[in-house]
Amino acid sequence: MADYTQMWTDLGLNHDNHNALLDNLGQAYQSIFMSQENRPEGMSYFDFVMSEAHGLRIQELREEQEAGRKIIGSFCVFVPEEIILAAGCTAVGLCAGADFAQEEVEKVLPRNTCSLIKSFFGFKLGKVCPYMEVSDMIVGENTCDGKKKSFEVFKEMVPNFYQMDLPQTKTPMARHMLKQEFKSFVEKLEEMTGKSISVEDLKQGIATVNAKRKALRRLSMLRAADPAPISGLDALLINQIAFLDNPIRFTEKVNAICDELELLIKETKGAKKAKAPRVLISGCPMAIPNWKLPSIIESTGAVIVGEESCIGERGQRNLTDDSADNLDGLMNAIVDRYLKIDCAVFTPNQERVNHIKEMSQQYNADGVIHYGLQFCQPYIMESFSVEKELEKQNISVLRLETDYSQEDMGQLSTRVEAFVEIIK
Amino acid sequence: MADYTQMWTDLGLNHDNHNALLDNLGQAYQSIFMSQENRPEGMSYFDFVMSEAHGLRIQELREEQEAGRKIIGSFCVFVPEEIILAAGCTAVGLCAGADFAQEEVEKVLPRNTCSLIKSFFGFKLGKVCPYMEVSDMIVGENTCDGKKKSFEVFKEMVPNFYQMDLPQTKTPMARHMLKQEFKSFVEKLEEMTGKSISVEDLKQGIATVNAKRKALRRLSMLRAADPAPISGLDALLINQIAFLDNPIRFTEKVNAICDELELLIKETKGAKKAKAPRVLISGCPMAIPNWKLPSIIESTGAVIVGEESCIGERGQRNLTDDSADNLDGLMNAIVDRYLKIDCAVFTPNQERVNHIKEMSQQYNADGVIHYGLQFCQPYIMESFSVEKELEKQNISVLRLETDYSQEDMGQLSTRVEAFVEIIK
Repeated sequence: MADYTQMWTDLGLNHDNHNALLDNLGQAYQSIFMSQENRPEGMSYFDFVMSEAHGLRIQELREEQEAGRKIIGSFCVFVPEEIILAAGCTAVGLCAGADFAQEEVEKVLPRNTCSLIKSFFGFKLGKVCPYMEVSDMIVGENTCDGKKKSFEVFKEMVPNFYQMDLPQTKTPMARHMLKQEFKSFVEKLEEMTGKSISVEDLKQGIATVNAKRKALRRLSMLRAADPAPISGLDALLINQIAFLDNPIRFTEKVNAICDELELLIKETKGAKKAKAPRVLISGCPMAIPNWKLPSIIESTGAVIVGEESCIGERGQRNLTDDSADNLDGLMNAIVDRYLKIDCAVFTPNQERVNHIKEMSQQYNADGVIHYGLQFCQPYIMESFSVEKELEKQNISVLRLETDYSQEDMGQLSTRVEAFVEIIK
Repeated sequence: MADYTQMWTDLGLNHDNHNALLDNLGQAYQSIFMSQENRPEGMSYFDFVMSEAHGLRIQELREEQEAGRKIIGSFCVFVPEEIILAAGCTAVGLCAGADFAQEEVEKVLPRNTCSLIKSFFGFKLGKVCPYMEVSDMIVGENTCDGKKKSFEVFKEMVPNFYQMDLPQTKTPMARHMLKQEFKSFVEKLEEMTGKSISVEDLKQGIATVNAKRKALRRLSMLRAADPAPISGLDALLINQIAFLDNPIRFTEKVNAICDELELLIKETKGAKKAKAPRVLISGCPMAIPNWKLPSIIESTGAVIVGEESCIGERGQRNLTDDSADNLDGLMNAIVDRYLKIDCAVFTPNQERVNHIKEMSQQYNADGVIHYGLQFCQPYIMESFSVEKELEKQNISVLRLETDYSQEDMGQLSTRVEAFVEIIK
């Protein structure tokens, strides 16, 4: 393995903290991912990406920077990758999936803040996220109260912070506002790069991102098979890596593993046993390395057949129409595509429960586990009506609320086991 | 005392629950308010209003209804009373200041929801808020995540619910959006009443509300005196009653007590001792009967000299410019006035901390107690930067987080006593 010590020093990472983090990550990855049986061969690429997530991938990003590209970090699927690519920049998702430096974090944020927000503060304060440090600009967005207000503090900690406002509804006024915000974002990127985005650039950006979404959609659909050709953990991992990897290479590799999965399905070979209880996960996003709940679920013998999540279908479904031949038409298409995201910060948000029902049917789920990050008001509030509506259709639901700590592992396992027993 | 049993039955209140509530309220009022010494004589009117809050005032509202007026209930100072009055309707604030039917509430809302939201659900589910039941329309607003998402559930429980969208910033786009929302609100009221709002109507609405704000401002300014001529509890009560009483009568009574307070100040007579430690409260609103923290503070011998709160200066300061001679101009003035409200749901919200500093100076506060309702993310997150900025100016701050229960009374008292000891 290459020595990235100098690179990490250049980025200002804290060596001791960072080494401790990598050790923990490596161990977790070994015990959660590498212990799985019957993994598709195509996973070896994604294992490699994970092993080099803080190494080779960061080196690539720095090489891109040297060649003049800007790296744009963000925390939300509302930040349009089409536009970032069109501007000749690279989009990366920032670290927000593990507790770090929590004592420092609680000096600047309330204890009752969701783990995801505390996490990115911890990665910043502990100086352990190379993606944050390599980013030329970090984009925050006004989604939930937690992020919106915590960014007021976070922006003082990072040199180049850009805040994107978002609507709370899907009205024509909301669409008008989102379009303005995306136009301002274009202007900001053009100002950074010193060049204008052309129709061709935008078409190319849309094509790249659509291809990625299509590949991920293809992967999703293959999970409808019984036995499932890929574990939920591995599929989640691929969805997580979507936020870090080079999008073109990533798309190729996702399509390659889909080719393999198609063969496995023909041979009725599964990563999990046939007739395993099938679980759909719905709710808050699970950023790397937040594998706690999926690993509990699959350790019961159940298989996760889909993620109704930002890191999953909510974030990746819906293509952007690329048919317009002018910038305004393409921008309209981008706005329309993003306004379909059924995040719980919107009101009303009936589309989301419809989508959960649809996924549940499409992937033959036996039950839905609603994953709420503690103190995430939008998803936890919405989980009550989600449960009510799904149960009306005789879909079993388990509502869970947890954080990134390991303290409730026992309790979660007991509840998940009991639920899997009911639905199987 | 008149017998309102029939009226309460007509409104669909639950007698047992409602009697229990009134008993509790009466006892709390006796022990918290009536036990105070040196109260201005003018408080007798507000004591009377409180004693008749569920009786005579509701009877008046029903008489207004019989005469054709519509009653518009709301939970937020963003719902423009000028417009409601201009439409020939009456605005009332809805009950949200005490725990009620919490077991029922937690079936539809997460436990980790702020007390204020749980409270209005409890008042509805327990059928004990005559203001909710008498309202012809209830207006919710997209302020915080908690309210925005809980209204999706609440609107199923009330017959005539109207949701108002609000911006999260103060940009020109936000102003444009707010104006649209206020225009839609005008249309909704016109549709309800069957008549159009004229320039004269709107000017009259503005005049009535401005007069109320001026009277409350006058009351605020008088509290700068040492000794304070009125207790913080009584001043808060007046601010709370501002949401229930007839606005014209209320304004007269506030001005009357101000006349009295001016005389008391001339005679250096105080409701509290001279040189008492002076506390400014800042943070979440305190709806009737949420008197927990103010009564703890004043029982230490300190005096509360101002409320930087929606039920207090944040809600009532800033007049609406009434100089325009057309509807659009007046609507612009209303939008401009409301967009000055420095609620923590906005980002950034520097105006609020500036206002706290200003109030602190104006009312000669010795320290600021920041009141955060548990799980209210916007105010609790903002309290960190408020504390930091105030301490830079050598203003002592105590950040408290609490709910409507009585369980933490001991702990709160200890912390408040220690703080008062420091600042005196």
